[in-house]
Amino acid sequence: MASWKTYLETNQDRYLKELLEFLRLPSISSLRAHKADVQKAAEWVAARLQAAGLENVQILPTGGHPVVYGDWLHVPDKPTVMIYGHFDTQPVDPLELWSQPPFEPVVEEERVYARGASDDKGNMLAPILALEAVLNSKGKLPVNVKCFFEGQEEIGSPQLPEFISANRELLACDLIFSADGGQWDEDQPSLMLALRGLCALQVDVQAARSDTHSGTFGGTIMNPIHALVHLLDSMHTPQGKVAVEGFYDAVRPLSDIEQTRIAEIPYDESDYKAQLGVDELFGEPGYSTYERAWTRPTLEVNGIWGGFQDEGFKTVLPSTAHAKISCRLVSDQDPQEIVERVTAHTHKHAPSGVTVKVRPDPSTAYPYVIPHDHPGNRIARSVYQALFGKEPYYARMGGSIPVCGIFLKELGVYTVNFAFGLKDENVHGPNEFFRLKSFSRAQLAYGMLLERLSEWEIK
Amino acid sequence: MASWKTYLETNQDRYLKELLEFLRLPSISSLRAHKADVQKAAEWVAARLQAAGLENVQILPTGGHPVVYGDWLHVPDKPTVMIYGHFDTQPVDPLELWSQPPFEPVVEEERVYARGASDDKGNMLAPILALEAVLNSKGKLPVNVKCFFEGQEEIGSPQLPEFISANRELLACDLIFSADGGQWDEDQPSLMLALRGLCALQVDVQAARSDTHSGTFGGTIMNPIHALVHLLDSMHTPQGKVAVEGFYDAVRPLSDIEQTRIAEIPYDESDYKAQLGVDELFGEPGYSTYERAWTRPTLEVNGIWGGFQDEGFKTVLPSTAHAKISCRLVSDQDPQEIVERVTAHTHKHAPSGVTVKVRPDPSTAYPYVIPHDHPGNRIARSVYQALFGKEPYYARMGGSIPVCGIFLKELGVYTVNFAFGLKDENVHGPNEFFRLKSFSRAQLAYGMLLERLSEWEIK
Repeated sequence: MASWKTYLETNQDRYLKELLEFLRLPSISSLRAHKADVQKAAEWVAARLQAAGLENVQILPTGGHPVVYGDWLHVPDKPTVMIYGHFDTQPVDPLELWSQPPFEPVVEEERVYARGASDDKGNMLAPILALEAVLNSKGKLPVNVKCFFEGQEEIGSPQLPEFISANRELLACDLIFSADGGQWDEDQPSLMLALRGLCALQVDVQAARSDTHSGTFGGTIMNPIHALVHLLDSMHTPQGKVAVEGFYDAVRPLSDIEQTRIAEIPYDESDYKAQLGVDELFGEPGYSTYERAWTRPTLEVNGIWGGFQDEGFKTVLPSTAHAKISCRLVSDQDPQEIVERVTAHTHKHAPSGVTVKVRPDPSTAYPYVIPHDHPGNRIARSVYQALFGKEPYYARMGGSIPVCGIFLKELGVYTVNFAFGLKDENVHGPNEFFRLKSFSRAQLAYGMLLERLSEWEIK
Repeated sequence: MASWKTYLETNQDRYLKELLEFLRLPSISSLRAHKADVQKAAEWVAARLQAAGLENVQILPTGGHPVVYGDWLHVPDKPTVMIYGHFDTQPVDPLELWSQPPFEPVVEEERVYARGASDDKGNMLAPILALEAVLNSKGKLPVNVKCFFEGQEEIGSPQLPEFISANRELLACDLIFSADGGQWDEDQPSLMLALRGLCALQVDVQAARSDTHSGTFGGTIMNPIHALVHLLDSMHTPQGKVAVEGFYDAVRPLSDIEQTRIAEIPYDESDYKAQLGVDELFGEPGYSTYERAWTRPTLEVNGIWGGFQDEGFKTVLPSTAHAKISCRLVSDQDPQEIVERVTAHTHKHAPSGVTVKVRPDPSTAYPYVIPHDHPGNRIARSVYQALFGKEPYYARMGGSIPVCGIFLKELGVYTVNFAFGLKDENVHGPNEFFRLKSFSRAQLAYGMLLERLSEWEIK
């Protein structure tokens, strides 16, 4: 019987074809029109788990987009490990900035371009392929494995708290590894010690009953866009601090050791700027760029619209204006409390002459912190050392993976980042891509992880 | 031979059918996709002028949307009167707020609903029908008439200054009457002594090269929406004055008599609010509502957009954000100078970390004022007295009709408002309509105007 590594090598062409097939499913979880596509992606994942040799494969209803579960539980004296990932994607707009249709993947210069390539289809497919390789070459796995792939990560996993709570027994495990996340760069591994939390809300401003003529009525009533920009501008100081009352109250200051770990990570400001294509950085005074991105909360307007947006000019006084806002949170901010504070600020600062409504997104994520010496981190570190030949950085992540907080609360298990996305892969933006090198490295890493896990003693 | 009034009466059904036909042409001048439709509307108008008995009917190229010209010049001892109107329309968005497709006119409760019904197709068709009635019943007109209908009013008549300047001889006349505009209400006529001027510009804010992930980069670079709302909010004081330096410098204060004439016009604040569906009015402190709408300049954001605007949430840090701004101007503000001041303000207040570009609309309109006792106003007043049985108000208009300033500059002739739109007709908004009563009244008014003009002595 060939080794699982040989199996992986000989199957790379087929695996790439499968990834492209997976990427062709436009499983955008936030858009109602794509609900059936998310379901199709779930079916694709279930079939792929089955083909890999997983058992008890099921598409489990959640009330929203489904969860795909599969397991292999035949070594009762060994630990049970859960692997997490998600098969839904972000929306694709602005579509005109894509070089190719986002759900028609192309491979160019050893990169796969498509929405979801890095986040998270390329990353989540890798452990399935590793499981197949080990099962096919050895006939068994060195540890018990449960796979948990969800279809609602990009909308904040709204049904998962209830779903996981209701399925505690099915999902019970000793360790969780997340195939959603990334490494520092192609040559540098990183452990990920924290995630920011998230809450979001939409602000709707209504002035006159309908759009009116700016000549006839301009100057006599409040323009809802003026009201909205006033409101939104009041949410930050010109220096870049969030000006919402009480916003920072629950923020736990960084300890000296935490600050030192972050300072140890090399940072090149001109690289950072070049990567984004900006001349200047901007952020909360008194913090380094990494501290701002990982350890400080933010309030960002993700979208704004109102009135005439087409070519040319239209002298309209619009009836309504709207904004979508989200906040990234850090320990110990409570998403619900932050929504309340932003809502209170909105009502307090709303100009007269308009009606302002706030509609919070039901999905939120708690900030998440895992101890740096957690057993899962120690095993991950050893795999990274072997794979990269380097010590990992002790980094953090500015993004949010809600399920980490949910798993911790409901199952009492920390989630270890074990994924291979990289920062330049245009995740959530146009022309998202995933490196073929990361794709094969991820498969190898999961194979090594499974081997090393069998040596781990359940405490 | 029947009288022209009888002719009008017996042809009302046909005239309404023709209006509906005219309204079915989606002649939106601001959208490139509708260029051919504006041309079709020009052809429709030319054919209608021909059918009415006008001579030398021509579709004249302007470099942009065309002008339709026709004349009848057979009474050399009588004055030459030009009739103005426009056959282009505003765009239709937000489309979802229309009760029926905007270019599929419906007649309900004595109103024609369609984009352009009041502004300006219903109004501009009326004088053509009156000319036909008089020509058909009398075989001739009592005065010389030139018809000038344009297809670019709603985009600010960008080619007309040059076109009118180049065609001074063709367009030479003694008096101009505009079939674009309106009356006070169904029972109350009004002379219109002033129009506001107009200038417009688009502000484009660029931050990172492309949309990025608000988790990964949020807090470290300027969000272009934050920059834009800060910039836009800086353009007004919280009290509602325009905060652009020098904006009011050229504004001529109202004289006592001007103030009195405005104060004489009845004003009911609860009616005004009810008409708009607002609980509260808002505007520059120290001025009445009519003063604000007619005699004070404004800066209004007509449109704003950036980032994610679809259903749900997307935690994106957008790359760009945009706004369309227009200013209504009063004597003696110069549109070009105001564009420069707003541009200077924009650059001065642009936050760091973003690139801000200002793109002025090439079309502008000078503010326009006509003496209250101008001969054209005196004739219009006498027709109104006969038609409404009432003295007209000496009102003003907050909107802009650029051609009035252009005619004055290039032909040395004032333009008299002689149109029958009413304020509640949702002009520029969804569900625009025109009253059938106004449609027939406008035809009658133009017939009477022609009769009375023949008695006017050219000075």
